[in-house]
Amino acid sequence: NGRSALHLDHRGSPGQLWQTIKAEARRDAEAEPVLASHLHMTILAQKSFAKSMAFTLANKLSSPTLLGTQLTRLISDAYSDDETILQACIADILAVLDRDPACDSVIQCMLNFKGFQALQCYRIAHWLWQSGRKTLALMIQSQVSGVFHVDIHPAAQVGQGVLLDHATGVVIGETAVVGDNVSMLHHVTLGGSGTGSGIRHPHIGHGVLIGAGVSVLGNVFVGYDSKIGAGSVVVTDLPPQCVAVGVPARVIKQKCDREP
Amino acid sequence: NGRSALHLDHRGSPGQLWQTIKAEARRDAEAEPVLASHLHMTILAQKSFAKSMAFTLANKLSSPTLLGTQLTRLISDAYSDDETILQACIADILAVLDRDPACDSVIQCMLNFKGFQALQCYRIAHWLWQSGRKTLALMIQSQVSGVFHVDIHPAAQVGQGVLLDHATGVVIGETAVVGDNVSMLHHVTLGGSGTGSGIRHPHIGHGVLIGAGVSVLGNVFVGYDSKIGAGSVVVTDLPPQCVAVGVPARVIKQKCDREP
Amino acid sequence: NGRSALHLDHRGSPGQLWQTIKAEARRDAEAEPVLASHLHMTILAQKSFAKSMAFTLANKLSSPTLLGTQLTRLISDAYSDDETILQACIADILAVLDRDPACDSVIQCMLNFKGFQALQCYRIAHWLWQSGRKTLALMIQSQVSGVFHVDIHPAAQVGQGVLLDHATGVVIGETAVVGDNVSMLHHVTLGGSGTGSGIRHPHIGHGVLIGAGVSVLGNVFVGYDSKIGAGSVVVTDLPPQCVAVGVPARVIKQKCDREP
Repeated sequence: NGRSALHLDHRGSPGQLWQTIKAEARRDAEAEPVLASHLHMTILAQKSFAKSMAFTLANKLSSPTLLGTQLTRLISDAYSDDETILQACIADILAVLDRDPACDSVIQCMLNFKGFQALQCYRIAHWLWQSGRKTLALMIQSQVSGVFHVDIHPAAQVGQGVLLDHATGVVIGETAVVGDNVSMLHHVTLGGSGTGSGIRHPHIGHGVLIGAGVSVLGNVFVGYDSKIGAGSVVVTDLPPQCVAVGVPARVIKQKCDREP
Repeated sequence: NGRSALHLDHRGSPGQLWQTIKAEARRDAEAEPVLASHLHMTILAQKSFAKSMAFTLANKLSSPTLLGTQLTRLISDAYSDDETILQACIADILAVLDRDPACDSVIQCMLNFKGFQALQCYRIAHWLWQSGRKTLALMIQSQVSGVFHVDIHPAAQVGQGVLLDHATGVVIGETAVVGDNVSMLHHVTLGGSGTGSGIRHPHIGHGVLIGAGVSVLGNVFVGYDSKIGAGSVVVTDLPPQCVAVGVPARVIKQKCDREP
Repeated sequence: NGRSALHLDHRGSPGQLWQTIKAEARRDAEAEPVLASHLHMTILAQKSFAKSMAFTLANKLSSPTLLGTQLTRLISDAYSDDETILQACIADILAVLDRDPACDSVIQCMLNFKGFQALQCYRIAHWLWQSGRKTLALMIQSQVSGVFHVDIHPAAQVGQGVLLDHATGVVIGETAVVGDNVSMLHHVTLGGSGTGSGIRHPHIGHGVLIGAGVSVLGNVFVGYDSKIGAGSVVVTDLPPQCVAVGVPARVIKQKCDREP
């Protein structure tokens, strides 16, 4: 299929990835003229992967009072200032290609997946927050919630290689920590315990898979590589490599294989 | 009320339906001048039900890079090429009027209900997918998720007379099958089992009613006319004409009457 | 922090609140020039709190067929005609500042919080509904669902000092009643029982807190100051001052303290 044909691997540099993306865009623009203008503006007329991402995200977030050109410059500045933002973005693309059976090209993820796009916007808001520009960070959080239906507080810490699948209704609170290679479905809440100060949101370990509609609430820890079944409510710590389900969630399997 | 006054019945032709719609639009434009321009553009200036639907959906889906005029032509082409698409659309309108107590006119469904509009856009994306135009089909899926907060894979098979009520957060996966006359509330997921190939999504029988926030996961079968209570998680087959509730869902009533 | 510095209290008049809002806007526009145009248009160029709210909401709800200028005039008319609408709006702002630890300025609530904005739009739709302008009320309900992902029927009765936190996916049905000082998280459904006439939605008492993903279904009553845990499904009456959790919800604590 398209995925293997493109010879993408986990060591792909931004330069290699960009060649793949342009090849995909040329192929799709030729096969589907209705999309030619869209693909030209977002990919083929852009000078680099960073420029293409900045243009694509800015276009989605722009409003009559926050212009696309301002946002494009802001996102480009973030990418220039902190190269780990773009590294995380590439890791997120590879995560989608690896883990989402419905995705078989890079541009499908880049241009079509609102979970991916929302996460990249969060990474910009997080950079602003850390730079002390909290008002703008919070305004971008609000635009992301409006445009992508994903509400991630800019102070939250989210690792790389993260997949937000379908994404509608995801909420990640101010003091939450999300490890690398976490996958979460739509309607997942990493929410507060209701107490007003200190760490009041969950810490999700590396490699955790969180099913649709799950709420993890309060200052709880979910161990690495665990899986939480759809619709569960987690209010206590979970060990690593377990499977937990239910309201409230109970561990139904310990030290499970990675592919049960 | 308005509903009975309009003498709509299940044998209504597109022509009869169109007369009803125009009468409703004239009545509402006269009663509420603020809406006159809206009703003129979407209904009164249009030449047929098909043209009016195409214009309305295209207007919602359009973006700076995918223009409303292109989308209007595309949707009109779909309606001309496969007349079952418009038949299904009319069956969906009648389903809303029959089953949603909060709806008492055709134009309320046509112009205001995002679940109905998202479903009609899916029908266009499904036509594109079957015609081999997968890139455009996936792009429309993405726009539908962005605009209506409903994510239906274009390869999914959805019957006619289907009601998506409120609709925010509905997700229907690539290999899912939804029968005729199914009703589902918001936040319903017909999701994957996590295994990567073959049929990995549910088959929902005719006449099933799925409550708010329900997840049905994996290659499971839900028998005709069954009802699944709000917040349930279904991971096993359900018999026909039953009531199931809980996490995981258990059958609490067998062979129930259709109107319990 | 900013909250205490602004000396806002529960007896704040619209005039005092407006001075606070303008001071915040000047401070933020100076600190973050990217936002200066946004803050100028929505706050600093406006003549009063009512004008600023009307402009902000109209801008969000506007579409090619329902213009911002028309909506600004409509909302201003509502505020002039019924002063309790703006009183409720101010009570809602104070509720956000009191109860949401992630909010520490009035303009953050006014400009960024879609739950707050959706609730203010509902208040306009409710005024239209009560004035007999049902078609326009339903059209605004639809726009609110499209723009803010919150679906409140204009006939529902919602008290003041109400917080919709995160807000994605909230659904409140036609015959629902929501008391004063209620807080609800995202994905909360106050839904119908399926029977077609009379009161078919819940009555939520004053001061109730409803967690993320909760469904309260049918003509049930939830007593004052009760708390319903995330993911619960409530299908029976709940007493006042209790804590209830689960699918279906069971009372796990009676006559709890207000701050457990």
